[in-house]
Amino acid sequence: MDDDSSSRIAAALRDWVRAASPGARLPSTRELVATHRASPVTVQRALRTLSAQGLIETRAGVGTFVRAVRTLRPADYGWQTAALRSPHSKITAVASALRSAPNDVIALHSGYLDRELLPERLVRAALIRAARSEAAVTRAPASGLPALQSWFAGELAATCRGDVTGPVASDVVVLPGSQAGLSSVFRAVVAPGQALLMESPTYWGAILAAQQAGVRVVPVPSGPQGPDPDELDRAFTESGARVLYAQPTFANPTGAHWSPQRAAEVLQVVRAHGAFLVEDDWAHDFGITAEAAPLASYDDAGHVIYLRSLTKSVSPTVRVAAVIARGPVRERILADRGAESLYVSPLLQAAALDVVTQPGWASHLRTLRRQLHERRDLLVAAVREHAPQAVLEHVPPGGLHLWLRLPDGTDLDLLARRCEAEGLVVAPGTEWFPAEPAGPYLRLNYAGPQPAAFGEAARILGRSLEEAVTARLP
Amino acid sequence: MDDDSSSRIAAALRDWVRAASPGARLPSTRELVATHRASPVTVQRALRTLSAQGLIETRAGVGTFVRAVRTLRPADYGWQTAALRSPHSKITAVASALRSAPNDVIALHSGYLDRELLPERLVRAALIRAARSEAAVTRAPASGLPALQSWFAGELAATCRGDVTGPVASDVVVLPGSQAGLSSVFRAVVAPGQALLMESPTYWGAILAAQQAGVRVVPVPSGPQGPDPDELDRAFTESGARVLYAQPTFANPTGAHWSPQRAAEVLQVVRAHGAFLVEDDWAHDFGITAEAAPLASYDDAGHVIYLRSLTKSVSPTVRVAAVIARGPVRERILADRGAESLYVSPLLQAAALDVVTQPGWASHLRTLRRQLHERRDLLVAAVREHAPQAVLEHVPPGGLHLWLRLPDGTDLDLLARRCEAEGLVVAPGTEWFPAEPAGPYLRLNYAGPQPAAFGEAARILGRSLEEAVTARLP
Repeated sequence: MDDDSSSRIAAALRDWVRAASPGARLPSTRELVATHRASPVTVQRALRTLSAQGLIETRAGVGTFVRAVRTLRPADYGWQTAALRSPHSKITAVASALRSAPNDVIALHSGYLDRELLPERLVRAALIRAARSEAAVTRAPASGLPALQSWFAGELAATCRGDVTGPVASDVVVLPGSQAGLSSVFRAVVAPGQALLMESPTYWGAILAAQQAGVRVVPVPSGPQGPDPDELDRAFTESGARVLYAQPTFANPTGAHWSPQRAAEVLQVVRAHGAFLVEDDWAHDFGITAEAAPLASYDDAGHVIYLRSLTKSVSPTVRVAAVIARGPVRERILADRGAESLYVSPLLQAAALDVVTQPGWASHLRTLRRQLHERRDLLVAAVREHAPQAVLEHVPPGGLHLWLRLPDGTDLDLLARRCEAEGLVVAPGTEWFPAEPAGPYLRLNYAGPQPAAFGEAARILGRSLEEAVTARLP
Repeated sequence: MDDDSSSRIAAALRDWVRAASPGARLPSTRELVATHRASPVTVQRALRTLSAQGLIETRAGVGTFVRAVRTLRPADYGWQTAALRSPHSKITAVASALRSAPNDVIALHSGYLDRELLPERLVRAALIRAARSEAAVTRAPASGLPALQSWFAGELAATCRGDVTGPVASDVVVLPGSQAGLSSVFRAVVAPGQALLMESPTYWGAILAAQQAGVRVVPVPSGPQGPDPDELDRAFTESGARVLYAQPTFANPTGAHWSPQRAAEVLQVVRAHGAFLVEDDWAHDFGITAEAAPLASYDDAGHVIYLRSLTKSVSPTVRVAAVIARGPVRERILADRGAESLYVSPLLQAAALDVVTQPGWASHLRTLRRQLHERRDLLVAAVREHAPQAVLEHVPPGGLHLWLRLPDGTDLDLLARRCEAEGLVVAPGTEWFPAEPAGPYLRLNYAGPQPAAFGEAARILGRSLEEAVTARLP
């Protein structure tokens, strides 16, 4: 495929379309191949470009036609303002961590692994096997493919101590990604207007899901050691909350990793309040100098609602996660999932199970750990050398991010703009706070593309920081 | 792969596991292959069975081990009753249309196409191409892959009359199935406790989504011609609703198909009340003696929120649908989708687009129409001959189902049980009514497996009906 020829053909066709009348039929692919001396693939690519621009339309089996130009009369949708009323819950716009950045910038803003850190060979092979299997033409049960439920239960059960009864397959509900799980859990377990405790700062997607569910978010301060148990106890009492959302393992964004003692204390508080702990184990596969040790492995009384995702570590296209919950709460969550989307694509479920049960998966995870370790250390050193104003309070023992405290008075918006002007995309920390930010923070992803550019990134950050701080001075 | 040998090996291993202690390591696959003189695939299959039963666990790269038996101490989850409080909205259990039936029964209960009516070759080829493309290792924008948005917009625009401005790609939000779309639309457009008008009877999945959203469902009676415009007008006035959910094309379950005149009248009422019409065009690809003609093609003022699914016609594993909405309502829906699940798997999106843009898709749809026609007529004839008590008020010009009015006083539960005892699974009509059923109805799917058994199915139905009616007599 040749990008240049395809652009050239697209440009020529665009001129042709402009001159033609709406509904006119384009020359066939065969004719275009001959005219432009290009391959059919290149011609198809050019046609797809024009089609995506709304200039032409292909009717399968008939041909390709010039589309009628959209009438220029501006539409008046003003009546919708009355029909829509005020939104039930204010949902913030798409987070900056989800922005796609152009190829020529250094992108440290995202929450995903760089493509070269993915088990690409395993994923493609698994998807192809799944495409050839029953999973390509069937449905799946609402709670997931039994073999995948069993795998999720087995993984957690293997970490349970001897006196704790591990979960079984029927405790598992497979999800189309853990965001869907957060939405369902919050909807199922917290009624609109009731309180939900969340660590602060915490994952922006969880804040979004809580907003969508219309619950009242009560932030609990949390640092590298997790929340203070006394503070948590007070928050439960004061708010009447029955649910705490937390990330005990390599928290996003802080990289916090709770000690076994802290985990036990928090669980004690949760139990004492007859409450649930929604444990988001998003970084289970991203340990660097520590292992993921789910709190759920200490609990067999149904207090922990455990979320485990494979999307980030397997592939962003394989949107598969699971919630493991015991007791009636599992039924409540399953009912919400059924109403929300009936079942998860068995193709994606089969592919996910295939990847994580290959011998290559364990060796991939070992390699990934080494790569994350190198990248983390590289970015830490670069920031310390070139942006010393940004303080790294805690070198994360796992996860994908550094969480930097910036000087008081830093104008975060200005900082982000200055960085972008110099070719560096960063994520201002504001979005990770359920309420007012405790200070100016920045999250940098060391698992993104171009580790060779970390030095340059830190230099840009240092310079921009200089400007973003002094700009605020009187 | 040999099912018998795999069962034999599984049985032998089960005995071995029972005799072994928890944590003991099983012989390697190679050893098992030698011991049982079976292929590695057969051995793996046996191991997967045991794993799914929770008897063993495989640790990738390490080996397979006997799992610790779950402690028999019964867990007490009673405390959850307080923490869960009453459910925010009563969500009914999974619908009977989603039940999976054993292979040896005649299954006329489901809402899906039989596998042999799917474009299986196109689907597998598309999935394999997608697995080899960028889509296997990337994310997608929140509103969908641009080329797929463009396809959905183009399909609807092609049906718009000359004086109606057709939608464009940016009016489209790609969805992981239309159930997810219903949930999002109801959440985004109707606040909890507000009224939502729905045809009665109507799709059970829409009723479920409305329950989940916590809205107040107001049923509007609807027959083969669609709802009566005067009745609809009164319902809008009385309830203060700003949204009507309807299926103008081959409605599920009734097969109703609105005439152009009725469509125009309904749209007129919707406009007069400054309201939205959520048009669920679920059966777009299932025309038999009529063509799908979306109401959305009459509207460019943003009144119609159009839902189009590919899941049923392409493959139940390719969970891809779209909502097309214009004006601020589209942003409201998109924000809900973002909070609910961030984005739709690009692999599934790419595969769906691949299938519907193949030349083979148009010819597949032609064949499908012929097959649906034959099957519908076959089941209609069989029911009329062998179960004359069941009245078919309307032979559907498209869709997948017959909607049968049964004699007054029919005990539907008893009927379903009697049918099942004789090997026929049917769907009692109760679940398609948002409030009390207007009478005893039954939905039969003529697109399911085994059309050769339709005669037998109708005979069973006739006999069971006899018993289910007389059982009620004093």
